Amino acid sequence: MDFHLRLKKLREQVAAKRLDALLVSHLPNIRYLCGFTGGAGFLLLSDSGFVFFTDVRYDMQSRTEVKGARVIIARKALLAAVAEWLWTHRKRARQWTIGIDAEHLTVAEKKRLADLLPSGVRLRNAPALVEQARMTKDEDELEQIRRAVQLGASLFDRAVQVLRPGVKESEVAAEMEYAARRAGAEEMSFPTIIASGPRSALPHGRASDQAIAAGSFVVCDFGVILHGYCSDEARTVWVGDPSGVIAKDARDAYEAVKEAQQTAMAAVRSGVTAGEVDAAARKVLRKTGLAKYFRHSTGHGVGLEIHEAPRIAVSQKEVLKPGMVITIEPGVYFPGKWGVRIEDMVVVKEGGCEVMTPTSKDFTAV
Amino acid sequence: MDFHLRLKKLREQVAAKRLDALLVSHLPNIRYLCGFTGGAGFLLLSDSGFVFFTDVRYDMQSRTEVKGARVIIARKALLAAVAEWLWTHRKRARQWTIGIDAEHLTVAEKKRLADLLPSGVRLRNAPALVEQARMTKDEDELEQIRRAVQLGASLFDRAVQVLRPGVKESEVAAEMEYAARRAGAEEMSFPTIIASGPRSALPHGRASDQAIAAGSFVVCDFGVILHGYCSDEARTVWVGDPSGVIAKDARDAYEAVKEAQQTAMAAVRSGVTAGEVDAAARKVLRKTGLAKYFRHSTGHGVGLEIHEAPRIAVSQKEVLKPGMVITIEPGVYFPGKWGVRIEDMVVVKEGGCEVMTPTSKDFTAV
Repeated sequence: MDFHLRLKKLREQVAAKRLDALLVSHLPNIRYLCGFTGGAGFLLLSDSGFVFFTDVRYDMQSRTEVKGARVIIARKALLAAVAEWLWTHRKRARQWTIGIDAEHLTVAEKKRLADLLPSGVRLRNAPALVEQARMTKDEDELEQIRRAVQLGASLFDRAVQVLRPGVKESEVAAEMEYAARRAGAEEMSFPTIIASGPRSALPHGRASDQAIAAGSFVVCDFGVILHGYCSDEARTVWVGDPSGVIAKDARDAYEAVKEAQQTAMAAVRSGVTAGEVDAAARKVLRKTGLAKYFRHSTGHGVGLEIHEAPRIAVSQKEVLKPGMVITIEPGVYFPGKWGVRIEDMVVVKEGGCEVMTPTSKDFTAV
Repeated sequence: MDFHLRLKKLREQVAAKRLDALLVSHLPNIRYLCGFTGGAGFLLLSDSGFVFFTDVRYDMQSRTEVKGARVIIARKALLAAVAEWLWTHRKRARQWTIGIDAEHLTVAEKKRLADLLPSGVRLRNAPALVEQARMTKDEDELEQIRRAVQLGASLFDRAVQVLRPGVKESEVAAEMEYAARRAGAEEMSFPTIIASGPRSALPHGRASDQAIAAGSFVVCDFGVILHGYCSDEARTVWVGDPSGVIAKDARDAYEAVKEAQQTAMAAVRSGVTAGEVDAAARKVLRKTGLAKYFRHSTGHGVGLEIHEAPRIAVSQKEVLKPGMVITIEPGVYFPGKWGVRIEDMVVVKEGGCEVMTPTSKDFTAV
């Protein structure tokens, strides 16, 4: 990862925003900028370069991992160490404005820091510069994400092997998560969703102790973290006889969601807005009267975090750019009955997109 | 869980703090108060009772889970829905002061909410009333935590079965996590730490692809979430011949940490401060010159979150009370060499404590 380039770009942006310094507090942003993977830290950018503050638990780890920043192991609370550094390095001659990460710094953290600052130093809510930069992935990142997506996709094969009537949802999740670990995943990127029967109508139905019953869908939504980067995929399978009369509506809904998903993917290219991609999915579902059962957004960015910018949702003005990695995941949900969702990850390209997820979308019954 | 009682107590405390309302934003606090287990929501307490705001993804789920609060499914951003409710229900005749959860609400969230509020309604940082209440567990919670601790402890037996020279740290973690899922755990309470060789000197050395080598310690620190409640346990095992000259120092350090851990547990009882328990552990290590290698705190509260109040650390004034559940986990770490940590969970009682973790602490070699 080219941490040097990332830090250089950020430094230019901070200068352009007329900030004297920027305090980065969100850990995925810190990892993106300097490589630290631990659980506590602040990264301060100023005229004096980058300084990374962490605590004794991460002493050895930070010295190995952190690139492009001086490491300070705080002997006190981290924000107190930041304030102490500012006391030592402030420019007495003039006001100093420090940008803070308002979307992540808590009200209490801001107050604790403000109370410790020297006079002449003030805090200002900074725009989400690092999140903006993270939206567009570089080649190193795309390669990591492709590997995570490939590993993630292999878990669905495992799910289909074990998914049968009578098996608990949590058992299917257990087999997938075990396979993920054995294949080198650090952890799952979110709690595995294995939602069967009426639970498949819950968009966030994480695997429960419920036994899977025939005559309904099972929504499988899952992802891994590999070398820090997330994957996200969803497939929906029918359990039981797919030819019966009960399955007819289900098959129709499945095919409509599949068409909506493919149409939305076909709409992805550099220059269109996120809202246009969302609209493409909804338009297909409107044809068959299913749009009102599609109640969540069409997708989201994925990278160091499972949910990051941009949001692919109604009226979103964000213009897609080459290198953005997003999910396309329309779904329809009939409360008390069942639901269907199909989700792939794609990379935005100049004239279209690269579909990362290799898994088949053919209607599948087990 | 007695949500009714929890809500009633909170209502009394909010009145005593001269707040007209309280906006609870931290999800574990919301789960504690009204039972919601999903991933997005705000709980507002006011004269009109409790109102819970969530989005369409949690429509069915919130209606099933939430006790003691009216559920509003927001059609817009959640904080905009909260503001809209306040516009409708404000008392025109007087000022309204709404307490916010300053340790969890972000600077940006506070600004978005403040910008939408009617005049006469203002926000004030509220004390951590819910965290305070959560420190002392009721019988239902203790029962859940005991079950989580029992399940967690069974994973160490699995670790000892597979932990051998040449096996990867991540393979040990995979077997433990698989066993956890099969036994009904929802997920691990934190990324499993299997830290072997020099990595055992990292207090947060999560399982890597490194193969375990003989002639060193392996620190195993792991926990599960069962019905929402966390477990946390650490054991350290020697890999290879325990009788050799290399192992002599290691055995001595192990026995010192074990004595420190047991002495700190013996110091736990209602009425002592968290700092006194921490000091008890350090005093033992000072006898053998090891205190300077014990660089983290002695423990922390555990419940719906893996780290919650109280902190068991140097000079902490918090007085322990019956029903508090805490970890006792001293460790010593020799950078580049190895580390040892031993951790149990205990419940504070009137004259002492109940040790929840059943696992033996005898020096073990595999």
